[in-house]
Amino acid sequence: MNTINTADAVVRNISTAVEEVRKQNPLVGSWTNFVTINLVANAQLAVGGRAAMCFLPDEAEPLAFVSKSIYVNVGTLQPIACQSLPAAAKAAAEANKPWVLDPVAAGLGDTRTSVLKDLKQYKPTIIRGNASEIITLANLWGLETEIKGKVEGVDSTDTVREAASSALKLAEYTGGAVAVSGEIDLILNSEKAYYLTGGSEMLECITGAGCSLGGVMAVFAAVTDALTAALTASVFYKAASDKAVSGGKIGTFSFQTAFVDYLSLLTPSDIAEYSEKHLTLQECD
Amino acid sequence: MNTINTADAVVRNISTAVEEVRKQNPLVGSWTNFVTINLVANAQLAVGGRAAMCFLPDEAEPLAFVSKSIYVNVGTLQPIACQSLPAAAKAAAEANKPWVLDPVAAGLGDTRTSVLKDLKQYKPTIIRGNASEIITLANLWGLETEIKGKVEGVDSTDTVREAASSALKLAEYTGGAVAVSGEIDLILNSEKAYYLTGGSEMLECITGAGCSLGGVMAVFAAVTDALTAALTASVFYKAASDKAVSGGKIGTFSFQTAFVDYLSLLTPSDIAEYSEKHLTLQECD
Amino acid sequence: MNTINTADAVVRNISTAVEEVRKQNPLVGSWTNFVTINLVANAQLAVGGRAAMCFLPDEAEPLAFVSKSIYVNVGTLQPIACQSLPAAAKAAAEANKPWVLDPVAAGLGDTRTSVLKDLKQYKPTIIRGNASEIITLANLWGLETEIKGKVEGVDSTDTVREAASSALKLAEYTGGAVAVSGEIDLILNSEKAYYLTGGSEMLECITGAGCSLGGVMAVFAAVTDALTAALTASVFYKAASDKAVSGGKIGTFSFQTAFVDYLSLLTPSDIAEYSEKHLTLQECD
Repeated sequence: MNTINTADAVVRNISTAVEEVRKQNPLVGSWTNFVTINLVANAQLAVGGRAAMCFLPDEAEPLAFVSKSIYVNVGTLQPIACQSLPAAAKAAAEANKPWVLDPVAAGLGDTRTSVLKDLKQYKPTIIRGNASEIITLANLWGLETEIKGKVEGVDSTDTVREAASSALKLAEYTGGAVAVSGEIDLILNSEKAYYLTGGSEMLECITGAGCSLGGVMAVFAAVTDALTAALTASVFYKAASDKAVSGGKIGTFSFQTAFVDYLSLLTPSDIAEYSEKHLTLQECD
Repeated sequence: MNTINTADAVVRNISTAVEEVRKQNPLVGSWTNFVTINLVANAQLAVGGRAAMCFLPDEAEPLAFVSKSIYVNVGTLQPIACQSLPAAAKAAAEANKPWVLDPVAAGLGDTRTSVLKDLKQYKPTIIRGNASEIITLANLWGLETEIKGKVEGVDSTDTVREAASSALKLAEYTGGAVAVSGEIDLILNSEKAYYLTGGSEMLECITGAGCSLGGVMAVFAAVTDALTAALTASVFYKAASDKAVSGGKIGTFSFQTAFVDYLSLLTPSDIAEYSEKHLTLQECD
Repeated sequence: MNTINTADAVVRNISTAVEEVRKQNPLVGSWTNFVTINLVANAQLAVGGRAAMCFLPDEAEPLAFVSKSIYVNVGTLQPIACQSLPAAAKAAAEANKPWVLDPVAAGLGDTRTSVLKDLKQYKPTIIRGNASEIITLANLWGLETEIKGKVEGVDSTDTVREAASSALKLAEYTGGAVAVSGEIDLILNSEKAYYLTGGSEMLECITGAGCSLGGVMAVFAAVTDALTAALTASVFYKAASDKAVSGGKIGTFSFQTAFVDYLSLLTPSDIAEYSEKHLTLQECD
């Protein structure tokens, strides 16, 4: 592992991404679940993006057209999702807009499995999930030689390190970035892998930390490359969650408020500084 | 333009509307989008109304029956919306209950366009949107002689003043009120037009400020005429947002909390006083 | 009526349930409405459970399989709910997992009535509703000799005491517990009935207090019997709401934040102490 310092390009890229989003206010179109849809939108707005959410296939093309990037989350599927989500991914791919896939609860239910298989062909720019979701997705996409991992609802029962080889296979297939969220985050593309420490475990005590992280990755993907976007969002989340608990013990909803507040208040240099302390580079095998 | 003073009937009407809602706690039935549905309900409750939300056509009549007014928002449409939203508007119209139309992202997607065209015949009591949505709706309803305006997701790319003539045409067609939300709000019917200044730009940093404003207009429409209801809700929003930032710089979720708090805490005389300062009357051409 | 004291088994059972949920973090699968789905999940997480939400029939079995209990709420129905909600209840019953029914706005719309009738055969472990919903459900399930009660949206227009005989009939039919929420809560099974006082009326000023209470009952049903689960959640809600207003007048969203905070912060002994003060036992007739 190599530690990161301020002089490193990655820190400058992250800091620049934070600045650019605040300048450009890119519109991100999202196809996401009902539990956390409000938090996704508010997190996207907090970091400086703009948000629009759709559910119908006929909205895939116009939404991709007006958006700078697209976020697709397979939670709380409705019947129409079998048409809408592939249409959304296809529209993004054809319009050359980056898109982020969040394979929430991958493996649970036949519809979800079918939708996730359909999405494979559109090669997401970024895939973000917990360890179990990443492992399951690599299985579903036929990228693993043997079946691994286990799924229990929306929570991971595997560790981030156990998901590292699946994440790499996904990145090699898509040519984009993959982010595995957990106590330590793993963010990689086919050439470089970063581990990210820090962050408060209170993020697990509110719903939507994962979904909104994916939504925020789509915001940063509107202004920078896949790996930098995934890193910037991940660092932002760890940093804001740490700040939110810096005053001591706190209830879960006060934490949520403080956390989103810091998404809106942390500066490019705050994020750069946090990156230096918490990011470590590991060359891929 | 004429300035407003306390003696003016409009200020008394606004103040009375605030009082009456707190006394009567009118039930408002809403057909609204998934992103902001929770904020719509909580804003309606905060000002003193009660909230019930539906999505199915067979609920249109019973919901209109038990409600004092109806709110229809075309965001995040599902396939069933093609039947449900016209049924909701029809049920309101036939039961002589006021209803508010929020043409969110008008112009985006064929389904939305089709639903909006269907709704024309039921002549909403109040139409509330941003400038682009108001212009697009006037286009869709065939009230403009030439195509104007542009749509980008849920955000306006036109100014409120650019939407003034479209708003007037809509009001002349419906016989009700039209509210164009923006940095300065324009609220009018076919006889009178008011401009409303003030309000914090932080309202743009959370999702649902517009939707919940429409939902709150429906609350006030339950106790007063269309123009007064649209004015009262608009003044309430500007006033509560100003109060929410009166302590200085604030994160976006703390702003949201403070904003809804003030919806529940501001008094009729607070709202009357704010109206005097920020409302100006302009005779229509 | 008999008062409760610390020595009583019920207080120990309640206190133990709070402890066990914090230890086991049981996963609860929910089928619930769009208005309050986020609050339901966050309330379940705050007391120590984990949350997963679904809407599709093919997810009924896998969700019941990975969950310790299931929550079914009939608010904001979509067309697919006619298949999904009975499938969810059936899967829970067949997997011997406890499940909680929340008959939101029972009586409003033909679809809702049809879904509620279908659910009868799966005998919910706990039924939670306001007085009007409980009376209407007993009517719909043919347990009343004459039609009673009235429905107006999601709010009760009957009192808890008026619903007592309906609640008992439902409990005798299901063999489980029934909770009628109101100014005073009534929680009973076919053998014992408890009245619960306390709680802030601010709970009526936010949306989802009832739904999330049902969702939290499902969390406790994962670790204890039906009656104890219904009691524990009800006491928790009254206690947390009282604490949330203990500092004086408060806006509605600050109340919501403080309320969820206390769901995450109150200890088993806080809840035991509150039970002693506010629970009274009444033998059933």
